[in-house]
Amino acid sequence: MIEFMTENFLLSNETAQRLYHDYAASQPIVDYHCHVSPKEMYEDRHFENITQVWLGGDHYKWRIMRSNGVDERYITGDATDREKFQKFAEALPRVIGNPMYHWCHLELKTYFGYEGVLNGETAEAVWQLTSEKLRQADMGVRGLIARSNVAFIGTTDDPIDSLEWHEKLAADDTMKTVVAPSFRPDKALNIDKAGWLAYVRTLAEVAGVAITDLASLKEALARRIKFFDAHGCKASDHGLDRTVYRPASDGELDGIMAKGLRGEAVSDEEADALKTALLLFCAAEYHRYGWVMQLHYNCLRNNNTAMFEKLGPDTGFDCIGPYNGSAALAKLLDHLNSRDQLPRTVLYSLDPNDNEFIGTLIGCFQGAECAGKLQHGSGWWFNDNKVGMQQQMTSLANLGVLGNFIGMLTDSRSFLSYTRHEYFRRILCDLFGRWVENGEYPRDMKTLGGLVQDICYRNAVRYFRLEE
Amino acid sequence: MIEFMTENFLLSNETAQRLYHDYAASQPIVDYHCHVSPKEMYEDRHFENITQVWLGGDHYKWRIMRSNGVDERYITGDATDREKFQKFAEALPRVIGNPMYHWCHLELKTYFGYEGVLNGETAEAVWQLTSEKLRQADMGVRGLIARSNVAFIGTTDDPIDSLEWHEKLAADDTMKTVVAPSFRPDKALNIDKAGWLAYVRTLAEVAGVAITDLASLKEALARRIKFFDAHGCKASDHGLDRTVYRPASDGELDGIMAKGLRGEAVSDEEADALKTALLLFCAAEYHRYGWVMQLHYNCLRNNNTAMFEKLGPDTGFDCIGPYNGSAALAKLLDHLNSRDQLPRTVLYSLDPNDNEFIGTLIGCFQGAECAGKLQHGSGWWFNDNKVGMQQQMTSLANLGVLGNFIGMLTDSRSFLSYTRHEYFRRILCDLFGRWVENGEYPRDMKTLGGLVQDICYRNAVRYFRLEE
Amino acid sequence: MIEFMTENFLLSNETAQRLYHDYAASQPIVDYHCHVSPKEMYEDRHFENITQVWLGGDHYKWRIMRSNGVDERYITGDATDREKFQKFAEALPRVIGNPMYHWCHLELKTYFGYEGVLNGETAEAVWQLTSEKLRQADMGVRGLIARSNVAFIGTTDDPIDSLEWHEKLAADDTMKTVVAPSFRPDKALNIDKAGWLAYVRTLAEVAGVAITDLASLKEALARRIKFFDAHGCKASDHGLDRTVYRPASDGELDGIMAKGLRGEAVSDEEADALKTALLLFCAAEYHRYGWVMQLHYNCLRNNNTAMFEKLGPDTGFDCIGPYNGSAALAKLLDHLNSRDQLPRTVLYSLDPNDNEFIGTLIGCFQGAECAGKLQHGSGWWFNDNKVGMQQQMTSLANLGVLGNFIGMLTDSRSFLSYTRHEYFRRILCDLFGRWVENGEYPRDMKTLGGLVQDICYRNAVRYFRLEE
Repeated sequence: MIEFMTENFLLSNETAQRLYHDYAASQPIVDYHCHVSPKEMYEDRHFENITQVWLGGDHYKWRIMRSNGVDERYITGDATDREKFQKFAEALPRVIGNPMYHWCHLELKTYFGYEGVLNGETAEAVWQLTSEKLRQADMGVRGLIARSNVAFIGTTDDPIDSLEWHEKLAADDTMKTVVAPSFRPDKALNIDKAGWLAYVRTLAEVAGVAITDLASLKEALARRIKFFDAHGCKASDHGLDRTVYRPASDGELDGIMAKGLRGEAVSDEEADALKTALLLFCAAEYHRYGWVMQLHYNCLRNNNTAMFEKLGPDTGFDCIGPYNGSAALAKLLDHLNSRDQLPRTVLYSLDPNDNEFIGTLIGCFQGAECAGKLQHGSGWWFNDNKVGMQQQMTSLANLGVLGNFIGMLTDSRSFLSYTRHEYFRRILCDLFGRWVENGEYPRDMKTLGGLVQDICYRNAVRYFRLEE
Repeated sequence: MIEFMTENFLLSNETAQRLYHDYAASQPIVDYHCHVSPKEMYEDRHFENITQVWLGGDHYKWRIMRSNGVDERYITGDATDREKFQKFAEALPRVIGNPMYHWCHLELKTYFGYEGVLNGETAEAVWQLTSEKLRQADMGVRGLIARSNVAFIGTTDDPIDSLEWHEKLAADDTMKTVVAPSFRPDKALNIDKAGWLAYVRTLAEVAGVAITDLASLKEALARRIKFFDAHGCKASDHGLDRTVYRPASDGELDGIMAKGLRGEAVSDEEADALKTALLLFCAAEYHRYGWVMQLHYNCLRNNNTAMFEKLGPDTGFDCIGPYNGSAALAKLLDHLNSRDQLPRTVLYSLDPNDNEFIGTLIGCFQGAECAGKLQHGSGWWFNDNKVGMQQQMTSLANLGVLGNFIGMLTDSRSFLSYTRHEYFRRILCDLFGRWVENGEYPRDMKTLGGLVQDICYRNAVRYFRLEE
Repeated sequence: MIEFMTENFLLSNETAQRLYHDYAASQPIVDYHCHVSPKEMYEDRHFENITQVWLGGDHYKWRIMRSNGVDERYITGDATDREKFQKFAEALPRVIGNPMYHWCHLELKTYFGYEGVLNGETAEAVWQLTSEKLRQADMGVRGLIARSNVAFIGTTDDPIDSLEWHEKLAADDTMKTVVAPSFRPDKALNIDKAGWLAYVRTLAEVAGVAITDLASLKEALARRIKFFDAHGCKASDHGLDRTVYRPASDGELDGIMAKGLRGEAVSDEEADALKTALLLFCAAEYHRYGWVMQLHYNCLRNNNTAMFEKLGPDTGFDCIGPYNGSAALAKLLDHLNSRDQLPRTVLYSLDPNDNEFIGTLIGCFQGAECAGKLQHGSGWWFNDNKVGMQQQMTSLANLGVLGNFIGMLTDSRSFLSYTRHEYFRRILCDLFGRWVENGEYPRDMKTLGGLVQDICYRNAVRYFRLEE
């Protein structure tokens, strides 16, 4: 029996406890994929209260409130911050088994020193405590990062971004954590989505290239990739909904581009063809610069039209995608590999049924470039929970080399989310400990501890080339 | 080490044991979806022997016998009841790990006081014991229900049903359990199945509406919904095989109806369009009356043509469906939600790979109408076992608010199946206990016990509005 | 806490330990599906070193090396055997959680008496030890088989095979293990793959039938089936990539055959139609001879074109297939069953998401011919690990009769792989033990031990009719 949230939280056996406390806990954090704001980092933003930090933009929490029958007024509406916090606190005890229960209590303990439970009755005390603490000088964004022992942060940035805040951060000696942009060109690829033409016009301006056809669009992207590389970018990221592979001739592609540039609608097949061409082009560029390519896929977005019209995208109305794009993904990787243009690549599917497919697919493209050139990304979004992480790691272990896994990322918009690395590390150590105590791996703490530290920190440093 | 079928069956830790014995066991049963006969309830049917109760119509047991190489004569054929029971008893020890092993022994213990094991050697003794007990006055249908502490039974009924037995039950003061019909209009929707036209003619007669087009079919259904509502109906149920969403114009739909009414075959696309229109219409009606809508889907039925010709449907020859209707389901819910016509809805897929999709989809349509407006239904049919229930609840916990789950139903044709609620409750308490003893939730028995009682009983009372 | 690789490896509870040591361990091995060479068995091949045994053709190990960033020179290239072994030994500690870690250490312990750990530092000692042992007279192929207590080996053979080595083995009194061929006619069915026409010409020659149309192709296959049957064949095997069911008229089929015989390309639909016709024909023949039919499916092969061009097929570049052929499979079985031509059949899908579908599908075609006529094959290829086997057995237990399962096979090319039966048996006993110690099955060791021995040995003897 382990008491709630005590030092051995999630560590069900002695080997796991030793691995966590002696090897994992002290490792710096490499948060190679997240959505925090470089501006807020530079300006060391201070939050006024816990609602601003927790409920300002976190659609995970919004979904929980909605599932508890909370009126939208208390979620994204005009209720006061204190009222919103109350509703969330009242819902929390009902999410037994949900990672949100753990994340919240880990954050309250780590950053606010609160050891109790959050519910409707304790909400007022927690509100007072957190408000008071947030007024401390060291509880701004920089203070939170510093106390979390974060070595590297990879933000997510649009190709048209000026990277001005990244520049300022890089020039600021008082910022010890390395902050690098990541290149996310979804808007340039999505010729089938509203706003593409306007976006392409802005991109043309920013890149200083008149975009009149596919070649010039590629040229604009190439320039921005070069610009990002000069600003320390180590990785790209694509949000694909579904994977595509639809080769087309140059003539066809130019016809599709021309349609798009005239503001005409393109068919699904045409959109797939253009996306394929651009994805292949970008991937080859990433490969040339030694970047990592991240592919996130299998999402069905904006399912609730009524709420989309009120709140827009990324507000908690997405679900796992029903697409079977496995064959397309295999062909995409093969296309690049056949031309020696395949970058180091991380695959994340929102559908946990894809775990074993990914595990076997990446095994087809590994090679001498580096250990674990192709990676099965850590449990993503809806899979970012104990079961999801255990399944991803167990699948990877069964089908590949777990010791080369680059480990956890937060994918978060919040500066309190670094505790998710602790959550991951405890789950990792518990998994190793269970294997050891079941006789499945020798109880050689040096080797085990080395593997743990590789997965928590060193593999990511090596993979993203952070020591160069 | 827990001994077989003793009081701590399935309860692997002390927290689980306390939760089950102190909180769960005493809760009344709300069996909101089953297939028992209101006539047998009204008439207090007595069974002559255990074969009549167990093997008369239970295709779960038939499949086990067939998988054990038993000749069909002993299953659905002309062997004696005693012979059939012998064959089943001989097969039982071989189904290690199957819920049937547990259900049978729970039923023998609970209703017949038999503490031993059933196998080929003990079959004679069990036959004698059960035959004797079944002759007792309190071992008829009503006695079985009474001793099971059942507060509510929702049967499954055709729109053309007169509900005469429901009326008689409602008028009978000696029946303490509330029995309500549920509305299952599959036959009216399935224009692509044999018998549709004959069914529609009967429906027209019963509803007192000449069905000549889509509008009059809707009117007939609307009248029967009103009639069911007047008889205490709280819920509908649709068996969909695969989910559909194919909007069509009124003109197209009338053309499809006209074909069907002329007895002509319709295409798959036409059938989907008609089903979509009728499903949307019915859903809006359910919403108007405050009913719950249940959707059961992803079944591949009647796979064995040779046996279908001998025994007809629902005789043990169905399997999990290969359909990916996820996108259709998302669109169907969005269509209703956009028009403020989405009823409280329970989704059940026969394919356990859909668990995570369902968990993320329902999160897109929750809202202030009630806590847990959209529900992920309990492990259904082939998933109604320990693993299936654990996976459904763990998935729901990870992706939503488990505390708002409406819990178990039997989906059974047998009056001995109420022990499946005990089975479910033990698995639920064990899951909670494991989390607590791993430090994942505070050991606050009052909160935990409250959640357990909500899931076992109170959430269903609230969700089906049984106290109105 | 169980020490690594000691006698209770994987046996987490006392019931499991007793079941394994008292019942499972002593059972002979029926390795009913593997890829070892009858020639090597007849000639009692001796290997020079561990690299020849382990790394000569085992693409499981190659994938691990590639995933560890090892250069291809050390995998399939011109590095020395000692160098290759070093690279593999260095990679091994990093595959924590992978069955390879267990298989290697089980083999080192069982066949070479090595109780230590294999890694980069111990590689030299292990190399010396294994090289020395391999020089012993009883460490040839026959010695390895004999000490593994193997009662039966089913090899995998092409219809054009002369079976000369099988004949010699059968005539050799000193060979105690029964070795039988299995019939694998993939090349005859794959009209859409390169080499089909040349293959058909060879088949014609071997069978003594001029193949000019579908009827004569069937006749040639029928003759080879008869020939295999006369050589003790008990089973066939089909590697399908994806399942097919596309009925076509005789005229259509003859047209497709004519195209193929002229060397013209056929469409996917045409290929599916021919494969369906040939599969149905072969199945009916198998049924006539009382053979078992094995269907392996859902593979996506040769994903890495660059490596395929260098190394050819079956070199570690396959992955789980993205196909949903569930409906086709159901129809194929129904077609045969409706004509009383369905042989005893084992289904293996490479996609573990298919477990529950298979479990429910086989239940639709069971019958009195024998207990467990339709079988869910043991965790195959990428699923041949602890998790994969647990999931396959748990699914089978939940959905059917686990007691009738025919258990494990190696599917291996290596004569050291018989330890995988030990691996399987430990996992099986652990599963039973867990159920018993959780109160889910009576602690009746005689019944449990009987079930274990059935699954480890006796069911396979009965199912493959090895005592005839």
